[in-house]
Amino acid sequence: MRILGIDPGLQTTGFGVVDMDGHQLSYVASGTIRTTTLALGDLPGRLKILFDGITEVVARYEPDVASVEIVFVNVNPQSTLLLGQARGAAITALVASNLPVAEYTALQMKKAVVGHGRAAKSQVQEMVRRLLQLPGLPGTDAADGLGLAITHAHAGAAMGRLGEAATLNRRQHAMYKGGRSY
Amino acid sequence: MRILGIDPGLQTTGFGVVDMDGHQLSYVASGTIRTTTLALGDLPGRLKILFDGITEVVARYEPDVASVEIVFVNVNPQSTLLLGQARGAAITALVASNLPVAEYTALQMKKAVVGHGRAAKSQVQEMVRRLLQLPGLPGTDAADGLGLAITHAHAGAAMGRLGEAATLNRRQHAMYKGGRSY
Repeated sequence: MRILGIDPGLQTTGFGVVDMDGHQLSYVASGTIRTTTLALGDLPGRLKILFDGITEVVARYEPDVASVEIVFVNVNPQSTLLLGQARGAAITALVASNLPVAEYTALQMKKAVVGHGRAAKSQVQEMVRRLLQLPGLPGTDAADGLGLAITHAHAGAAMGRLGEAATLNRRQHAMYKGGRSY
Repeated sequence: MRILGIDPGLQTTGFGVVDMDGHQLSYVASGTIRTTTLALGDLPGRLKILFDGITEVVARYEPDVASVEIVFVNVNPQSTLLLGQARGAAITALVASNLPVAEYTALQMKKAVVGHGRAAKSQVQEMVRRLLQLPGLPGTDAADGLGLAITHAHAGAAMGRLGEAATLNRRQHAMYKGGRSY
């Protein structure tokens, strides 16, 4: 199974692609999509760069599933709104490519990668380097993307079962809705 | 010029398509994209419905430009985050179809359609009905979509000039960036 991890942001979005073969993880690719060449106020332009960038990554590496960081409300409500719009664009690019999307908090990612939720960014970078046997430290955004892919790999078996249950529930729900007359 | 107005929301997104021929406005289409058949927590699923719905509207009516409501921070930060993600998906669908996107606040829309910014939803519906000579009141979400299209039509000439200036600035900016060595 090939997993694409995405750490969405309006200015920089980190991504990481990891292959899982049984319990074996291997590095495929990682990087950062930057929108900082555009003017701060050009939100549509930034969202287009984000959409095009993720679409290109999906087309190039053909992942089976995406793992996206759940963002939280910021102390600055305006920042929350901007981050929300960036995350909406990122998820939209994934579902437009028909990828299933799993979601994890930064806390879950840090627990899965480092072992505890209060890990610093540098600890995430170092553990990602070790787990994937990289020759050097990945950048912070790319490390978060790789970390989210690793988190989904670790949660894989359990999430697979949950995924099946969710699909079943949705089918039952759809059947129920289908039986109603509106 | 054909204008697509979008009032984005996670549960219901209103749209309206209006043709502007000189000062003459005419109704083309309007409606609502609903994601309420999905479970509340299925954010990726909802964003996919929104993306697919807007992509279909763009393909069917072939607008020249889109006019999207600027959303504001809510008293509930979690709602702000959800609305931001929906708006991000909506704008992403528009830019993925290569549409230029103009943005207006609800206040600007109400001023353009009703004449003052404190208008009630019912006043927007009634004025949209009159301006577009509709046989009946449009729904509230569709009325907002049509109102945003009308707002862009009214601002058209001025925005066109602004648009040209913005394009020019961006080109100059790109040239400047191109001249640098990184």
